[in-house]
Parts: sequence; C-alpha cells; structure tokens
Amino acid sequence: MPKEAVAVDPDVVAAYAHDMAGFCEAGVAAVVVFPETVEQVQHVLRTATELRVPVVPQGARTGLSGGANAVDGCIVLSMVKMNRILEVDPVNRIAVVQPGVVNAELSRAAAGHGLAYPPDPSSWESCTIGGNIGTGAGGLCCVKYGVTSEYVLGLDVVLADGRLLSTGRRTAKGVAGYDLTRLLVGSEGTLAVVVEAVVALRPAPAPQLALAAEFPSTASASEAVCAVMASGHVPSLMELMDTTTVRAVNAMARMGLPEETRALLLVAFDGPAKEAELAAVAELCRAAGASEVVPAEDEAESDLLLQARRLSLPAMERLGTTMIDDVAVPRSRLGAMLDGVEEIAARQRLTIGVVSHAGDGNTHPVVIFDAADPDEVARAKESFDEIMELGLSLGGTVTGEHGIGLLKREWLARELGPVALGLQRQIKAVFDPLGILNPGKAL
Amino acid sequence: MPKEAVAVDPDVVAAYAHDMAGFCEAGVAAVVVFPETVEQVQHVLRTATELRVPVVPQGARTGLSGGANAVDGCIVLSMVKMNRILEVDPVNRIAVVQPGVVNAELSRAAAGHGLAYPPDPSSWESCTIGGNIGTGAGGLCCVKYGVTSEYVLGLDVVLADGRLLSTGRRTAKGVAGYDLTRLLVGSEGTLAVVVEAVVALRPAPAPQLALAAEFPSTASASEAVCAVMASGHVPSLMELMDTTTVRAVNAMARMGLPEETRALLLVAFDGPAKEAELAAVAELCRAAGASEVVPAEDEAESDLLLQARRLSLPAMERLGTTMIDDVAVPRSRLGAMLDGVEEIAARQRLTIGVVSHAGDGNTHPVVIFDAADPDEVARAKESFDEIMELGLSLGGTVTGEHGIGLLKREWLARELGPVALGLQRQIKAVFDPLGILNPGKAL
Repeated sequence: MPKEAVAVDPDVVAAYAHDMAGFCEAGVAAVVVFPETVEQVQHVLRTATELRVPVVPQGARTGLSGGANAVDGCIVLSMVKMNRILEVDPVNRIAVVQPGVVNAELSRAAAGHGLAYPPDPSSWESCTIGGNIGTGAGGLCCVKYGVTSEYVLGLDVVLADGRLLSTGRRTAKGVAGYDLTRLLVGSEGTLAVVVEAVVALRPAPAPQLALAAEFPSTASASEAVCAVMASGHVPSLMELMDTTTVRAVNAMARMGLPEETRALLLVAFDGPAKEAELAAVAELCRAAGASEVVPAEDEAESDLLLQARRLSLPAMERLGTTMIDDVAVPRSRLGAMLDGVEEIAARQRLTIGVVSHAGDGNTHPVVIFDAADPDEVARAKESFDEIMELGLSLGGTVTGEHGIGLLKREWLARELGPVALGLQRQIKAVFDPLGILNPGKAL
Repeated sequence: MPKEAVAVDPDVVAAYAHDMAGFCEAGVAAVVVFPETVEQVQHVLRTATELRVPVVPQGARTGLSGGANAVDGCIVLSMVKMNRILEVDPVNRIAVVQPGVVNAELSRAAAGHGLAYPPDPSSWESCTIGGNIGTGAGGLCCVKYGVTSEYVLGLDVVLADGRLLSTGRRTAKGVAGYDLTRLLVGSEGTLAVVVEAVVALRPAPAPQLALAAEFPSTASASEAVCAVMASGHVPSLMELMDTTTVRAVNAMARMGLPEETRALLLVAFDGPAKEAELAAVAELCRAAGASEVVPAEDEAESDLLLQARRLSLPAMERLGTTMIDDVAVPRSRLGAMLDGVEEIAARQRLTIGVVSHAGDGNTHPVVIFDAADPDEVARAKESFDEIMELGLSLGGTVTGEHGIGLLKREWLARELGPVALGLQRQIKAVFDPLGILNPGKAL
C-alpha cells in the first residue's frame, strides 16, 4: 500500500468520520485508506480480517442515514480514488465503472454516446456510483425509469476475507444461480466492498416538458397524483412540494414559485406525445381541485422548475437543524401520509416541510427544529419516529431510497419482522463471518 | 390436509414426474400434494422437515431445464390450485396473486384495468406466475420491458421448516434490508416455496407495429440488430429466426414466411412514433444488407408475424427430438454466436435451428436429432455443450431465461466460479439447512 494512500493525521481522519445524516453517532477511525487498485482493497480486507479490525466503506459521504459513519478503531475505506469509467458501450448499452465515479460524470460520459444512466439522487453531482449501489439510491426520474437496483447488471466485490467475487453478467438477460448482484445492491457496505460495476444504460430521453399545478391541500394534490397514475400516464417526473418547501426554495433562490399554494405538483413527460399528455394531466389536476395549472412555456422553463425542486432539501436545511425522513407508501395512501404528517407537526408544534417523489409515494418529511432547545430536539426526534410509524401503518416502508444506516436500525427490525431479520443476519454471517464489514449498520 | 389434495395413485404420480425438458432424469415421487391454502403448504413443509423428505415445488411444468422434475421418494408440491388473483390495483399498478395463476390469466385481468403484466414466456398461456418467479422467466417483450425479476415487488414464501416469510413491499420504492425478494426470484424452488406475490403492472402498451427483414446471413442480420440498438431505438420486440426455424413454422402453420432467407428479423414498436421508428429501422436493415424489408400493413398483420415467431419452438419440435439451449451473449456478440452455432452444426452433422430474442442477445439454438440413433444422440449432446462453451467464451451466460435445473448444473459451476458457487451453497444452507427443497437442482 503506497504511503500516500494512507492517512492517519487526526484532522483527516476526523474529516472522514461521517456522512450527511444528522443525529448519528460517529466513532474515531484508526486510519483512512484511499485504495487505487482492486489488489489494494484486497490487501486492506485481508489485513482487517487478520487483525479483526472493522472496515467502513465510503463513497462521497452524501448519505443521509449514517451508513458511512466511522466506528471506533476502524479502517475507513474511501473509494473515491477508484474513479475511472472503464467502458461505455452503446451497442450493449452498458458502462463498466469503478465505484468512486461520480454519478454526474457517468451521466455525462453516457450522454456523449446518446445514452443516459437514469438514477439521479439529489446529490447526483457529488455522490458516487459505489455509494448509490450501497444505498440502492433513487431520485427524481425513478417514477418512469426505476432505481439503482434496476441498473446494476454485475459487480466485482471484495469479500471480508479479501477474496474477489464476480456476480451477474454483461448480458441483457441471465438467470444462472441466485441473484447475488441484487442482494449486494442496497446492502450498505455490510456484505462486501464494490470495486467494479457493470451498469445498464438507456437511450437518452428527450428533454422534459413540465407543468406546475397549485392545490388548496396536499390531499387534493394526492388525489391528482392517483388520477394521473390510474389513467395510464407514465410521467418522467411527478414531484410534490408543500408550502414550507416552496417558501424555503423561494427564500434561497428567488425562484418565484407560488407561495400561497398549499401543495405544488410538478409533472413532466419526455415522450414524443408529451404535449398531449401534459394537457390531459392538466385536466386531471383541475378535476382534482387545482386552483392554477401553469404549463412551462418550453423545455428551458421546465428545467427551471426541476432546478427549483432539486433545491428543496438544501433550502429547508437553511431554516434550522433538520432531520430528513424517507418514508414510501403505496401511492394511493400518499394523501393519508401527508395528512398524518401535518397532524404530527401540529401536535408536536414543529415545522415539518414535506417534499415528495409523489408518483412513487416516496415522501421526505423534513423535521425542522432548534438544536439548542432540548425540548424541541426531543419533539423533533419523536416526530421523526411518528412519521415512520405512520408510514408502516399505511403499508409503507421506513426507507424508500436513503437506506437504514444507523438512523433507522430499530425500525428495520419492526418493518422486517423476526423471520426476515433472522435470515438477513444469517446472510450477513455468510459474507462476513467475523462481522468486520461496516459493523452496526443496517442490521 | 384434505384427502382430495393428496394423490398417491402411481399413474397420477408418474404424470407429475417431469417438466418439458428433454434428457433429464426424473425420480419417482412418493406423493403429489395440491395445497389450496398457505397453512397447507406450511403443514407439508413442516412434515417434510420432520421426516427429512425432499419437496419438489411445481407450477405448470412447462419448464425447459428439468427444474421441476421429481426426485425419488419426494413430495411433489403442485401449486396449481392456489390460482386466485387476489387484487388488481390500478392506482398502485400492482397485482397480488397466488403462485398457480396462469401468466395469461394475470395478463387478461390486468388488461381489464388498462394494465399489463409484461413478462411473456412462450408458454404464457399455460405457465404459472409461481413457475415464472422460480425460473426468472423472460419472453418476447423483454427487450423493452424487462424480465420477471423487474416485476416482483414482494413475496410470501414458506421456508423449508414451514415458517412463513414475507419479503419486499407493495410500494414503488423501498430499500429496507437485503433484497430477499430478488434473491428468491430465479432460485428454482431451492430456497423456499412461493405462496403469494405482489407484482408490478404497467399501463397496457398500444398494439405493436412490426416489420420483417430478410437477410442473406445471420451475420448481416446481427449487424442490423447492433445498428438499431446503437442508434437509440427501443423496439418492443426484436426477434431473429433462421432458415430452419422459418421453414419449420411454415411447415406447421403455412404462415407464408420467406423460405429462401437465411435470417428473418422481426422488429416492432409500440410507442406513439412507431411508424417513424419502423421507417428508420427499415433503413438500418437495408444498410446492413437486408434483401427485403416488408413492413406489416397494420397491427393485425403485425400480430400474425408475432404469432409465427411464437410457433418457432413447437414447430421445430416436429422435426425430430430436440434439445433447446438458452445462451445469452452481449448483443454485440450475437453474430459471432450465430456463426459459431453454424460451425458446430456443420461439424457435428446435425440440424441446429436458432431462434433468438436478438435484441437481448438471447439465443435458443435447438439441436434436432434422431433419438433412436445413439451416434446422433451423442453428437447432439456434444453440440449442446459446445454451444454453452461458445456462449461463455463470448462473455455470455449459459441461461438467459430458462434456468439451470438439472440440465446445466455442471455448467453453472463453470460460469460462476468457485467463490460465487461457494457463497451460493452457503445461502442455500441458510434457507434450507437440511437440503430438502428441490435437492439436486440448480446448485
């Protein structure tokens, strides 16, 4: 291992202690290692196995669940220097990448061939493909194009004991043996360390055309979402911002979004019939009670709307300390979910802004509070838990796309139940019998 | 267990001894059980665990790899009577089904709501969803819509010891814990018995519009396939039939397909711009050397072409005894694969008809031979193996959609290599420590 690949300086080590999740403990790592080759990763893991030292794999640390946080005495394995795009193949519509490649870089490389890598988490300009694979990341385009799991065809991973495992395939189809590839996607670095990935690409979609619809309530906006989906439309984007979100975005970036609306629904299409589809959706929005439906004039204006949406989380982070939730419910229960969050906010006397991937039923309630006020902190934490409780009661999941990490470990057990949890622990033991890979995360 | 749910009559037991794969041994089962409830399945598995008796789950036994074949002394667990569609939900675009539901019945139920369940194996009018999940079945529409794995959101399964496990979700997105759902899809009944599935539906596509292009060689047809995919088209179907296949279909059903062509490529689109896309594809076919490009006059004529394609396997089965292979290669290697199969056929002095899901690089070489001629049988078996060898050498997989079953066990080990195979065996042991679930299959 070359010297420059190893950092023990306490300031550097501290800088790699945690991801972007609030309220998650982070331990003190012994060392941060920046491998550049598969062999170096194997060396680190062999050594860690020999010495029984925990290893915490990291991408860009943009995660929101504490999954990349250091544990005491661990080796932080930062994969950011394994950042080469090894291949973009337009005939087979695949790319072969190292885990440290930034999502946006892969998107740009694919665009150069008329292709796209769809999953687009909010952090897409800085997050890495390895991190996306670890968390099973989603994004705004998932309502039409699906999540990370749909795009990972094959993986090279290093196991806890340093052995190299290849899973999956480079072909469009294949069913030889158990699907270890998909078992690894979303496993949050607890089963193995990804060192190379074969991902599927798609032909680049045409630019989106969007509309913005203002609703007098989140319930009526949710009704519109259900009507659009029940009518067989396939929007390329369907996002819902509540008043708090809209005002926060305006305050941050003067976007001129309508501040009096209770719910702003953004819907876009990218297919050849997008104008007609938008017109039909406009009608459905009006029928569901929209007070205003404003189609974008062109694709540039559509893009501005999407930019506004992308600012939602950073904008709300300026309003106070935040805890960002990630509950997904069946989309038919979106209205009940949003009503319930309002009730929680009122009862707990807190602001909870909600931005949702509405077409997927995936909500991000953002609990905003004053971290200097212990009573408010306590109510914020209670609210955060009540939101997950509500999501489960509506047939949902405690995490649509951010992962479990440290933040939601107790909730995973509740969601899975004892039989599934027991099997998951046994699978963990198959891959990592000594329990050195990202210990204490997820399971 | 009600009496009528249990068959011990030797004729009945013999009738359930095997699926549609040739050249796979089948044992003699002790009993065939037809459960109608989850509790009955649990009872069977608890009993089997107590008595250490093997259990072989079966759907409609349309499989092509021997995965559903009985083993000596086993309980055959036929799921065909658990055949209710429990829910079709157009807002959430899901269906909840029991495993014995026939694929076409689910398709029809979905169509009643303007929806579709895309995976469409050739046997779709008789195969069951449980069997589709077991094998990870594909079909003709996969080039645009993907395979079974993409459509299974959640499962209820009974474990080897009789416990009930629920995996996955009813939501569009979700990343809570390891993806046991996808681990189970394609596991060929070796990990658990599916008793209920939540599957994703899509808005029903518009009728397809197709063209047929005649090529002087499979190589030039493969070139056209690559050109179409490299140009960013997303056909809803892209199938290739060689001379043997075309003539067999004509002989069976007088379809009037062009018998002098070396390779007949069928391409279809179902999007709003389908006429324009077909015209562009016609140009690409001509540029790649097509001697004739015949667009279908309308959707009815398109449908006839697809009917002809669907007859390929049964038509070739009339030419002699057959062994049907299922090798998928990166689509850029399709030409090399087809050339290689021709070489094998010539060298082994056998007819090998090839029908391919060309857009996916998934070929079905059908080795045709006289089962009464031991020398020919030996050459057929050699050819079958040489075809898989060739597929692996081209970066492919020995099974794109039919599964490993009994037919390709030795080949699975070669494809996976020792590290992956070892992990797969350990995962099998987690789910089925006594090894009673479909023993001897897949792994």
